[in-house]
Amino acid sequence: MSDRNAVVIDLKFARPSVVAALKGAFAGRTVIDMAEPENAGRDLSGVSYAVVWKPDPALFERAADLKVIFSGGAGVDQILSAYELPDLPVVRFVDRSLTDRMSEWVVLQCLTHLRWALPYGRQQRVRIWDEFSPQPEARDVTVGVMGLGVLGQDAVAKLKVMGFNVVGWSRRKKEIAGIETFDAAGLDAFLARTDILVGLLPLTEETRGIFDARLFARLRQGGALGKPVFINAGRGGSQVETDIIAAIEGGVLGAASLDVFEKEPLDAASPLWALENVIITPHAAAASDVAALFRHVEAQMERLESGKPLEHVVDRAAGY
Amino acid sequence: MSDRNAVVIDLKFARPSVVAALKGAFAGRTVIDMAEPENAGRDLSGVSYAVVWKPDPALFERAADLKVIFSGGAGVDQILSAYELPDLPVVRFVDRSLTDRMSEWVVLQCLTHLRWALPYGRQQRVRIWDEFSPQPEARDVTVGVMGLGVLGQDAVAKLKVMGFNVVGWSRRKKEIAGIETFDAAGLDAFLARTDILVGLLPLTEETRGIFDARLFARLRQGGALGKPVFINAGRGGSQVETDIIAAIEGGVLGAASLDVFEKEPLDAASPLWALENVIITPHAAAASDVAALFRHVEAQMERLESGKPLEHVVDRAAGY
Ligand SMILES: NC(=O)c1ccc[n+]([C@@H]2O[C@H](COP(=O)([O-])OP(=O)(O)OC[C@H]3O[C@@H](n4cnc5c(N)ncnc54)[C@H](OP(=O)(O)O)[C@@H]3O)[C@@H](O)[C@H]2O)c1
Ligand SMILES: NC(=O)c1ccc[n+]([C@@H]2O[C@H](COP(=O)([O-])OP(=O)(O)OC[C@H]3O[C@@H](n4cnc5c(N)ncnc54)[C@H](OP(=O)(O)O)[C@@H]3O)[C@@H](O)[C@H]2O)c1
Repeated sequence: MSDRNAVVIDLKFARPSVVAALKGAFAGRTVIDMAEPENAGRDLSGVSYAVVWKPDPALFERAADLKVIFSGGAGVDQILSAYELPDLPVVRFVDRSLTDRMSEWVVLQCLTHLRWALPYGRQQRVRIWDEFSPQPEARDVTVGVMGLGVLGQDAVAKLKVMGFNVVGWSRRKKEIAGIETFDAAGLDAFLARTDILVGLLPLTEETRGIFDARLFARLRQGGALGKPVFINAGRGGSQVETDIIAAIEGGVLGAASLDVFEKEPLDAASPLWALENVIITPHAAAASDVAALFRHVEAQMERLESGKPLEHVVDRAAGY
Repeated sequence: MSDRNAVVIDLKFARPSVVAALKGAFAGRTVIDMAEPENAGRDLSGVSYAVVWKPDPALFERAADLKVIFSGGAGVDQILSAYELPDLPVVRFVDRSLTDRMSEWVVLQCLTHLRWALPYGRQQRVRIWDEFSPQPEARDVTVGVMGLGVLGQDAVAKLKVMGFNVVGWSRRKKEIAGIETFDAAGLDAFLARTDILVGLLPLTEETRGIFDARLFARLRQGGALGKPVFINAGRGGSQVETDIIAAIEGGVLGAASLDVFEKEPLDAASPLWALENVIITPHAAAASDVAALFRHVEAQMERLESGKPLEHVVDRAAGY
């Protein structure tokens, strides 16, 4: 075939969500859904676009005329590291809904630890009425956000509105009104101010294993919450889970909220599940809405076809 | 005595917090702290100001020259209903810190129920990794706030920033940018739109027992969360706890968060403690910070003494 308008879909998402979203998406284009058995051996030459999440590695050889690869997720570590990708633009998924959901999760976790929701829950289970005092307020606590990209910047703004003192860290220094920011070299100063650490980093060579014992030991001790709190919704590969366990058990960390793990699903045998003051969610902080993904992909195709540059193109050298 | 500059304190708060806050407060004034045994029989004539929380009823006879009564709390139901008060201005406690803390608690509870934190917590305890789907986002859910005073208006603004659709209800209709508001007569229309009901009402003749089975039955059924959620941080006297229990058990309500109760502390025998998806906190949503209370009282004294009108004076007829 040689339909330059065609789009091949290889999304290992929950099948019903893909089927539902494909109805009404990509009007006027040929859609080749690789999950349909009849497409197994189909000629993909001439196809310009691929939308992928954990695709069949052979896809990129078979679709030899691709112009753009669209990632089905906001993170591209999986696709950049697991495949021999052709030298094409890789566009990642950026979407209002994804961003809003992530900030909901981040603000929820910060308020949960600020307001002692887990200890109050344990009291409730044994019917104890006892107010914890003193109760710090948000402005007494500094949230340090690592990663000031699309997600980090939205989280920072909402944490500020909720009253938290906020500091931020990114590879290249950012100017963000109302918060103190640090670049890669300022990590020590950033950590020394941080009571609640929020990880919103992509997984790259540089960020693999960054959340380890050495880093936890540099967080502020003796802040308004007593001990620092670690929250991660970036990628599990950035954290060292044996170090998190040791830090919680050894009192270096007071609490944690984890949405991502070194290996997902988290093994039922992991001690993380049962640690006091640790919250586990199953990589659910900001689910990709497939309909929103397809709208984003269509908008980028239209940009390209009308001569505008693609947005959200990954820097292959930086890895995100 | 006849020291018109004097202030009598009768605050049945945690004693250390009062003692600590009195250091450095009311400079240049005589402070008569009724918790000190030596003040038991002291002549209180001529004293202009009283700062009270659950005071000795005899106080108002003994301090016959009072000009202003300052409530130690934001709510004045307790002092208006339990005492034969002289016909004096009663000033309630309004403070940035109190307001911020209440909004922290309200936003925490709304996000907790939006993001299924209790069911995820139960899964965690049995080490189950399973994403709930679909996950509504905040904009799919309407929070209805009853009471648009100092606390309600701040909560509304922060809930909006977090993405919730918000509607509001108050005795006299309010104009608030970005939210639909209803007055007393619009209660039905307000409830029919509401997925998460937040009570931030004072306790008065009109609001006593307002959160009952009839009201819960008028909330929107079948919204994005499936069932409506009830959150109350106003006063426990506004809720009918047997009706809350029946509504949760009967599936009229899907969840609740309660900071206030008909009788406090909540009786250990109350079924509320153990209901699935019900969160209990011990009247801790927004603790009065005693140092902030004294700053507020001093500011009002200075206003009065420099000829300005007092702020936050209670409407004795309306009861708040
Ligand atoms: N848990 C979930 O459900 C979920 C959902 C969506 C996304 N995510 C994860 O969240 C990550 C972030 O998403 P995003 O959209 O905010 O990405 P983004 O816009 O690309 O932002 C990434 C941020 O991380 C910073 N960064 C990258 N490498 C760094 C390094 N070595 N040192 C310091 N800072 C570094 C970047 O710095 P510069 O600003 O200098 O480039 C940037 O501020 C994604 O990569 C994905 O893995 C998780
Ligand atoms: N749980 C805690 O830790 C805690 C802490 C502080 C306060 N509180 C409680 O929160 C309550 C509210 O505080 P606030 O400072 O926001 O009070 P506020 O500024 O006096 O506001 C009260 C609001 O309730 C509305 N209202 C009163 N009676 C009503 C009725 N019958 N029908 C409809 N609306 C009615 C008022 O309507 P209008 O605008 O028309 O007057 C106003 O909007 C306090 O009274 C206190 O009991 C609890």
